[in-house]
Amino acid sequence: MPSIRSQTYEERSVKHKNAAAKALLQTMARKSTNLCLSIDVTSKESLLRITDAVGPSICLLKTHIDIVEDFDQDLIERLQKLAQVHDFLIFEDRKFADIGNTVTHQYGSGPFKIASWAHITNAHVIPGPGIIAGLARVGVPLGRGLLLLAEMSGAGTLARGEYTQESLRMARTSRKSEAEKDFVVGFIAMGRIEEGGSQNQEDADEDFLILTPGVGLDVKGDALGQQYRTPDQVILESGCDVIIVGRGIYASNDVAEMQRQAERYKAAGWNAYLERIGRKT
Amino acid sequence: MPSIRSQTYEERSVKHKNAAAKALLQTMARKSTNLCLSIDVTSKESLLRITDAVGPSICLLKTHIDIVEDFDQDLIERLQKLAQVHDFLIFEDRKFADIGNTVTHQYGSGPFKIASWAHITNAHVIPGPGIIAGLARVGVPLGRGLLLLAEMSGAGTLARGEYTQESLRMARTSRKSEAEKDFVVGFIAMGRIEEGGSQNQEDADEDFLILTPGVGLDVKGDALGQQYRTPDQVILESGCDVIIVGRGIYASNDVAEMQRQAERYKAAGWNAYLERIGRKT
Repeated sequence: MPSIRSQTYEERSVKHKNAAAKALLQTMARKSTNLCLSIDVTSKESLLRITDAVGPSICLLKTHIDIVEDFDQDLIERLQKLAQVHDFLIFEDRKFADIGNTVTHQYGSGPFKIASWAHITNAHVIPGPGIIAGLARVGVPLGRGLLLLAEMSGAGTLARGEYTQESLRMARTSRKSEAEKDFVVGFIAMGRIEEGGSQNQEDADEDFLILTPGVGLDVKGDALGQQYRTPDQVILESGCDVIIVGRGIYASNDVAEMQRQAERYKAAGWNAYLERIGRKT
Repeated sequence: MPSIRSQTYEERSVKHKNAAAKALLQTMARKSTNLCLSIDVTSKESLLRITDAVGPSICLLKTHIDIVEDFDQDLIERLQKLAQVHDFLIFEDRKFADIGNTVTHQYGSGPFKIASWAHITNAHVIPGPGIIAGLARVGVPLGRGLLLLAEMSGAGTLARGEYTQESLRMARTSRKSEAEKDFVVGFIAMGRIEEGGSQNQEDADEDFLILTPGVGLDVKGDALGQQYRTPDQVILESGCDVIIVGRGIYASNDVAEMQRQAERYKAAGWNAYLERIGRKT
C-alpha cells in the first residue's frame, strides 16, 4: 500500500468510511482545493459576506460560532445554504475539552446545536478517552467526523511529543471501538503524526486527515504567540491534507481582494499537493 | 509564614489582590461554606429553580451556559439577581482551550459575553501562555479571575505529571507579568499542586485557590469515565479549597431534597476544612 502522502484525495475518499471525511475528500478532489477558510468575525453579516465571497475557493469553512454577537438560527440556515451553493463543508472549531457527559450536551444541545449543522468538529484529548465517547454518542448517528487536537500552532503549546503520541493512540483505540468506529477522522496537527513509530499491521490501512492551522504567505506571527508556515511547508514537506487560513484571506474588507487572496492560497495549496503526489505539471 | 493549608479562608481573603478571589474567600468565610454547585441542566427554568433552592448553601455556582437550550439575556440577569440574594459568585466552566486571539473573542463577545457576568472562568494551558494573555485582555479590566486546569477528574486524563507542573509554571510566570498580574487566581486540580518541588523565595507568599471537581458522597463513577472522591479526601487530605458537586445534589427534582443534599455536602466540606485548620469542635 502506497503511503498516504502519495495517494490522491480521490483515492482516499473511496476508502474512507466516515461520511463527513468522505465528503470532504470528494469535495477537495472535485474543486481542486485543500483550502479551509478560518473565519473569526463577530457579526453575522460579516461572516456571511466573507463566506459568500470566498466560498468558491474552499473545501471547508472553519467557524467559531460562539463569537458571533448576533447569532441566531437564521445564520445557520444561511450558512448551510452557502455551503450547498458553493460546495463546501462546515467545521466548527469548538475545541471541546470537558468530560464525556458535559461534551455530549455541549455538542448536541444549547443555543448552537453544533452537531446539527457542523459536518466536522474537534476536541482536545486532555480529558481522556471519555471525551470521544461523549461526542460519539451525538455525532455517530449523524455521520459527523471528529478531529483530535494532536498539535497546536501557538508558541509554547504543550501539545507536542508524548502528548501528541497519546492523541494518536487514543484515535487508534477509538477506531477499534464498536460505538465510535470511524468517528475520529483525523487530527489538527503540524505534520503527519502517524508516520514512523510503531505501526501495527492492523493500522496499515488507516487514513487520518491532517488539518493544519497557522498557514500564511505573508506574515510570521502575531502578538499573542500565533506562528505561521507556508502552504509548501505544510502540504509538501509535512504531508498535511488541508491548510487552514484566516486573516491572511479576509484582512481586506474588499470582496475582490478577498477572492484574490483565497485563489492565491488555493493555488499554493493545490500546487504543493500536486507536487507531493508527483503530478506537478 | 504558615502553609496555605493551615490558614483560614478569611486570613487568605485579606491578602488576595484579585477582586474575584478576594470576594470568593470572603463569601466562604461569611457563609461557612466551601461548596460549589456544578449545574449541568439544559433548561433555563430548571437552572434557575435549582440555583434558587441551593443558593443559600453555596459560595459559588459553576455553569455550562452553552448547554442551556433557551439561553437569553434574561437568564443572565436572573442568575445575577440570585447571586446577590443568596450571596454567591458565578464561575463559568468554559474550559477555554484556543489561541490568544480566539479566546479574547470567546470570553468577551458572542451571545454569552461570559466576562460580563462570570466572576471566574477557567482555561486549559495546552495552547501555551498566549491563552492567558488573550483572556487577561478582557478579564483584568473587569476584575475577573482565571483558574488554570492543572488536573482533571476523568479516567485517562493527560492532565497529570509534567503537564500539571507546566501549568503551575505558567501560573507563576503570569503572576510576574505586569499585564496579567493577579489574574490567575488558582487551579482546577485534585490537590495542592504547588506544594513541594522547587519553590522560589518569591513564590513563598503565593496563594492559589484549588477548586476540585469529581466530589461525591454516594457514588464512585459514571459510564463516561468520571471518578469521585469524598469532601474529606479533597479538603482535609488533599488540601483543596472548594468542592465542586453536581448531580449528587440535584439528582432529585424535589426542592427540599436538593436543599438537604446541599446542606449535607456543605457540612461535610466545612467540617473537613475546620479539621484541617485545627478548629474542629
